[in-house]
Amino acid sequence: MPEGPRFRTVTVVGLGAVGGSVAKGVLRRLPGVQVFGVDPDGESSARAARDGVRVVPRLRDCDVDDGVVVFAAPLDATVKLVRETAPVWRGAALATDVASLKAAVLEAATAATASSPFVGAHPMCGSERSGYPAARADLFDGARVWLCPAATGDAASGAEAAARAFWSMLGARPCTIAAERHDRVMALVSHLPQLLSNALAATLEDAGMSTGQLGPGGRDMTRLAGSSPSMWLPLLEAAAGEDAAALLAVERRIVAIRGMLESGDLRGVETLMDRGRRWVSAEG
Amino acid sequence: MPEGPRFRTVTVVGLGAVGGSVAKGVLRRLPGVQVFGVDPDGESSARAARDGVRVVPRLRDCDVDDGVVVFAAPLDATVKLVRETAPVWRGAALATDVASLKAAVLEAATAATASSPFVGAHPMCGSERSGYPAARADLFDGARVWLCPAATGDAASGAEAAARAFWSMLGARPCTIAAERHDRVMALVSHLPQLLSNALAATLEDAGMSTGQLGPGGRDMTRLAGSSPSMWLPLLEAAAGEDAAALLAVERRIVAIRGMLESGDLRGVETLMDRGRRWVSAEG
Repeated sequence: MPEGPRFRTVTVVGLGAVGGSVAKGVLRRLPGVQVFGVDPDGESSARAARDGVRVVPRLRDCDVDDGVVVFAAPLDATVKLVRETAPVWRGAALATDVASLKAAVLEAATAATASSPFVGAHPMCGSERSGYPAARADLFDGARVWLCPAATGDAASGAEAAARAFWSMLGARPCTIAAERHDRVMALVSHLPQLLSNALAATLEDAGMSTGQLGPGGRDMTRLAGSSPSMWLPLLEAAAGEDAAALLAVERRIVAIRGMLESGDLRGVETLMDRGRRWVSAEG
Repeated sequence: MPEGPRFRTVTVVGLGAVGGSVAKGVLRRLPGVQVFGVDPDGESSARAARDGVRVVPRLRDCDVDDGVVVFAAPLDATVKLVRETAPVWRGAALATDVASLKAAVLEAATAATASSPFVGAHPMCGSERSGYPAARADLFDGARVWLCPAATGDAASGAEAAARAFWSMLGARPCTIAAERHDRVMALVSHLPQLLSNALAATLEDAGMSTGQLGPGGRDMTRLAGSSPSMWLPLLEAAAGEDAAALLAVERRIVAIRGMLESGDLRGVETLMDRGRRWVSAEG
């Protein structure tokens, strides 16, 4: 990290694909900084220990003073951990997480303690693969990371600067956003693609198709169907209303395309495809 | 090519991403074999000529005797070319094409000449990129290529062996299938993913989202929306009925998923995701 806050220790709670990548990224980019890891899974813990992580049984066994605590668990577990371990992480310079929805996590963090160094984070990376073996030190390179500051008490502004510095150090591109706005955007740009991939895979399986019959495009479109249900179910439950609204919007669009095909309105399809091409190629 | 037929010349009609890749693949893998190219676009022709393709104005200017003729144009142009140039390609050892639907091409090929060396082909590769600059000598490496023999007259069996040898030489994995069956499968494994990607991109654009807000999954799911309309429109027109039926099937699936979210049936979503994960990871 060229400038900004220094962190004495980094503690990662949850050594899956994302948490493991945080640990590996810190080990590579901040040599000399002690990395603690907490995970109930013995296999992940053993692998992380071989990579240089100091694995301990519980968060309270870690030295978090002037350090960073990163919660890297599924959404429901993150909310529970953040609430229950506040007496520990409130002493850190920065507490952050990686859950893909932010309102529930932020609510837990602000309810738990008056002066909160908590800045929720959602790095937009990872893959359909899960677990420590899928962890990579360069997972965050160039990835957008949404930051949602808890913004309570004296620790708030220092914590936001620390969050920007920490995630930038890992290679990510921080962007601050309100938690509620973030969650509405995610229903569209993340949950909807996931559910469409699942709908496509189920449709193809019902029709007796196999993955060997897919070309590169079909493989792209079904890859997400291989995602971890245990990661997704808490997200889909928390955002069920927004996700249902997003599905309804795409249903209407699909019905319209089907109508064009049935009525021979190829000009309508062309307009749609031209629009899609412009949208995809525009700078985001 | 270790065994099988030898080809004196290879003529590629249409020097876009796929045709250009055939030309580059032959130049790399069959040094000494003359490669002819025909394309109305001056820029593509000039680039191909620099790579060693002998560019001529018309198919009848090429020497196709005991050679291979490859039509690499959009579906509608391919059907027209195959019909109009039969007096030329019937003298080849093999005439083939790369269109993504096969019944219309095969019909044109069998109507045009009594003894036909025509074996329709559909290599399942390529990308949303188009034009000669997207051509790669290794485009076909490991790709499934569906072969649909015209099977008329004395030339038929020799032509099928030649087609297997030719496409294997380019790195593809040939698999023979009846044209009608092929086209039904494509509505599901190729057209449906394409149209879903377009539906998703349009939905996201309508909601004010930009590509910069997407993670890797969202990018996978919208990549096909950047595909070439001029390639797709003839395919969607030819398969409109089958494509509409495929869209209806996925609509029903999406409605079901939306119902699960609205009623809080997370168990139903879990079952669907578990199924998807198994299907995606199964050997195709």
